[in-house]
Amino acid sequence: MGVWLKAKETAEQVRAEVAAEAARQRANGTIPKIAALVVGSDPASVYYAETKRKVAAKLGIEFELMKQPGDVTQDQLIRIVSEWSRDAAVHGIMLELPLPAHISTSAVAAAIDPLKDVDGVTPANRLAVMTGESGLVPATPQSCIRLLKAYGYTLEGKNVTLVGRGQTVGLPLFHMLQREQATVTVCHSRTPDLTFHLKHADIVVAAVGKPGVITWEMILPGTIVIDAGIHELPDGRITGDVDPRAIEVAEAMSPVPGGVGTLTTALLFENAMRAIRLQQQAGREAAR
Amino acid sequence: MGVWLKAKETAEQVRAEVAAEAARQRANGTIPKIAALVVGSDPASVYYAETKRKVAAKLGIEFELMKQPGDVTQDQLIRIVSEWSRDAAVHGIMLELPLPAHISTSAVAAAIDPLKDVDGVTPANRLAVMTGESGLVPATPQSCIRLLKAYGYTLEGKNVTLVGRGQTVGLPLFHMLQREQATVTVCHSRTPDLTFHLKHADIVVAAVGKPGVITWEMILPGTIVIDAGIHELPDGRITGDVDPRAIEVAEAMSPVPGGVGTLTTALLFENAMRAIRLQQQAGREAAR
Repeated sequence: MGVWLKAKETAEQVRAEVAAEAARQRANGTIPKIAALVVGSDPASVYYAETKRKVAAKLGIEFELMKQPGDVTQDQLIRIVSEWSRDAAVHGIMLELPLPAHISTSAVAAAIDPLKDVDGVTPANRLAVMTGESGLVPATPQSCIRLLKAYGYTLEGKNVTLVGRGQTVGLPLFHMLQREQATVTVCHSRTPDLTFHLKHADIVVAAVGKPGVITWEMILPGTIVIDAGIHELPDGRITGDVDPRAIEVAEAMSPVPGGVGTLTTALLFENAMRAIRLQQQAGREAAR
Repeated sequence: MGVWLKAKETAEQVRAEVAAEAARQRANGTIPKIAALVVGSDPASVYYAETKRKVAAKLGIEFELMKQPGDVTQDQLIRIVSEWSRDAAVHGIMLELPLPAHISTSAVAAAIDPLKDVDGVTPANRLAVMTGESGLVPATPQSCIRLLKAYGYTLEGKNVTLVGRGQTVGLPLFHMLQREQATVTVCHSRTPDLTFHLKHADIVVAAVGKPGVITWEMILPGTIVIDAGIHELPDGRITGDVDPRAIEVAEAMSPVPGGVGTLTTALLFENAMRAIRLQQQAGREAAR
């Protein structure tokens, strides 16, 4: 029986640091503010945005939640995020995904000021993840790495098998893991021998987006498992990409819920505080 | 003894198609023109640019080779590529790398019109390689994949071990290989067990930049080897990243010289013709 890599403590620590920094910013006259856009009535998106609003309130961060109907035009959304990008009182912009099919997510994302892009969805920040240049990095891949480090695991020289290659988690995470000096194998739906790649891994990271796609038989004793998936089953239970019974063989495994997702929300606000610092720095440079 | 994956025939075919398209463009009143910038007197850069000039002449493509002294300023280089970007008579812009240390390559690259960026060095095209969106893709990673396909090898479902993670070849190639549905492992200088990852590969791609760093003992019988390295040894011989004796065990292997590099130059001009089409398309859309 392995160790559950619970995120609660690390998430609390991150939130405490964010709250302290938000208080410092307020004391210096800056009221940290995030603006979030939810389009349509997808219950998961609305729920997630409401959760973030509650967390923001506890951290001393203003949170404007704008809801738009599902038939809003792309131009209208671009206008909204462009206005927030220009508004000096708004420091972070969040876009609840997915957007309706008639909207180009990348067109709306491109209208966000990269310095306010706390989700890391703008072209500049997506490129920065690939090149390793400074920027705002999406919170979910950050969370996977931070959770490992919180439990004392290092990545240098480790074999990491990453399952999933989505633009939001998988691919950015590949770049971040290899910059941590891991040797990364990226598996996906067209990988014929997934089990082989799981069995030679020191660390397995699942970012597939399918409940229980990695079974406990596929995990060798001694493996560290990070599960970045989150799914609601028809009976209401929350589960990840990995069968939780894998804890029986794994050395350690992140739970769902209580793992990657828990830390992700905290890191989103850490990103927001970083965004404020980047904007202040840019302001000072422009004033020179 | 494996088969040498020689690029000559494929390169000739690509050049013939480029020459035919260049002739069609000329017949329609467009004289294809590339502008190339060489900074300083690095003999390899000068030699490579002169080679491209000669190839261009044979293909019916105008080629302006501008040389700048090693102490040129970054602003001056940005001015040059910005002017070419605005000049409708220039269809492709090449920047011989590396630039001197006092110049930010990415700052100069960012001043190139992405539609003229035949080397795929602009932020837009680097991002497109990651996302799979349409763009101009760097020629060396293209060459690795085209050479495999020219010899009938497919990538879907194959295990590919890619050695090297540079911004120019390794990382773009990772994205392109996984989009071809390969399962890719990216090894690098901090991979402790390189031999293990080479031995479980169907296809090994070397893009390390160190002569002979992959020895023949590291290759299992049946492996396909693509060598994207090119080095001049002190005795004047040209060699790649892989010890050529690996051909004794490999199923097939690309030679150096005569492999990836040979096809790369041809693909650079294929990119130039694609750049012209993209510019013409953009012009038509703007005229609507």
